[in-house]
Amino acid sequence: MYTLYSMKRSGNSYKVRLTLARLNTPYRLIEVDILKGESRTPDFLAKNPSGQVPLLEVAPGRHLAESNAILWYVAGGTSLAPDDRIERAEALQWMFFEQHSLEPNLGAAYFWLNLIKGGRDLQRHALEDWMEQGYTALSVMDKHLRDNAYFAAGHFTIADIALYAYTHLAHECEYDLSAFPEIRAWLARIESEPGHVSMDWEPAPEAQAAE
Amino acid sequence: MYTLYSMKRSGNSYKVRLTLARLNTPYRLIEVDILKGESRTPDFLAKNPSGQVPLLEVAPGRHLAESNAILWYVAGGTSLAPDDRIERAEALQWMFFEQHSLEPNLGAAYFWLNLIKGGRDLQRHALEDWMEQGYTALSVMDKHLRDNAYFAAGHFTIADIALYAYTHLAHECEYDLSAFPEIRAWLARIESEPGHVSMDWEPAPEAQAAE
Repeated sequence: MYTLYSMKRSGNSYKVRLTLARLNTPYRLIEVDILKGESRTPDFLAKNPSGQVPLLEVAPGRHLAESNAILWYVAGGTSLAPDDRIERAEALQWMFFEQHSLEPNLGAAYFWLNLIKGGRDLQRHALEDWMEQGYTALSVMDKHLRDNAYFAAGHFTIADIALYAYTHLAHECEYDLSAFPEIRAWLARIESEPGHVSMDWEPAPEAQAAE
Repeated sequence: MYTLYSMKRSGNSYKVRLTLARLNTPYRLIEVDILKGESRTPDFLAKNPSGQVPLLEVAPGRHLAESNAILWYVAGGTSLAPDDRIERAEALQWMFFEQHSLEPNLGAAYFWLNLIKGGRDLQRHALEDWMEQGYTALSVMDKHLRDNAYFAAGHFTIADIALYAYTHLAHECEYDLSAFPEIRAWLARIESEPGHVSMDWEPAPEAQAAE
């Protein structure tokens, strides 16, 4: 059984929890509070030198980091992970876009405005950059969704899950999605998928112990 | 035949050129000078709404963006792209790490210090962040290389190519690699691989027309 090191309020961790729930895959969940430094202990850094969650133990002592790489691993062989060469590349394209253009902006804004709630370390000029670049990324997504119901392969995949995680938090960190009707329709489409779970959902303890 | 939209001095573009050279794959090369706005024209934005290079035309009118997604596409089915489930996930882990933790720091420093050469728009506080976070990423890489000759699958893969692109430029944008002996040995190892080409290498025009 997998062991997932995760933080409940981390969008990157939520991607993995949502994927595992969609796949009905049992796992042991260990909450790591990065705000309390729990991902910076010697014990955790031995598992992941980057000091980040999510982290998945795929076999005793073997750990996989980076949320989107974990999605490919756990969804491999299912319809959530396209296997066709060009469809796989297009899913990867959107997942690299997510980590390069969306998450560094929406994720950073969410961290400072919602988790840390500002404070003296928040640099306002950085927030302005996050807002501007975040809106640019959202525009690219909205444009794609004008002609496509999902991001890759013509159906719901881990590319949608990766992009959903922070996009569905946009309204909690000062982004206004009213100018992006296609994104709002896509968010609703994902939330109506069977097996969808919200960010605060957890597997039942008996499921975790069922192995 | 592929058409690659690329900029000679872009590390992300170089990843694709290096991979295609290693695979002896012919392609048509179109230079796009992003400093002159050539990736922001209506014609280019119709091909890639993100307005970035590299961009690969894989079939007439079908374009693939994001350097690391392009690497998976062109190297698919070769030893450069691991096919085993966990080895593929580990290669992906390092490629997402590259786009999330290395390229935003070394790539940004390279852009401002080497391409733009400073100027009034360079924010010194941003440069300090790039240096600090870039060194953190380099530390994680050096630690991995203490026990591994390459980043994934026990041999040279596109994960190495992705990480090589900006790491080999570190000394051109104020990073000092003297504290990272494993990285320096790995850079030399990659440069001694048969078929390696430098950043300014181009396919011969007759090869481009050979299809």
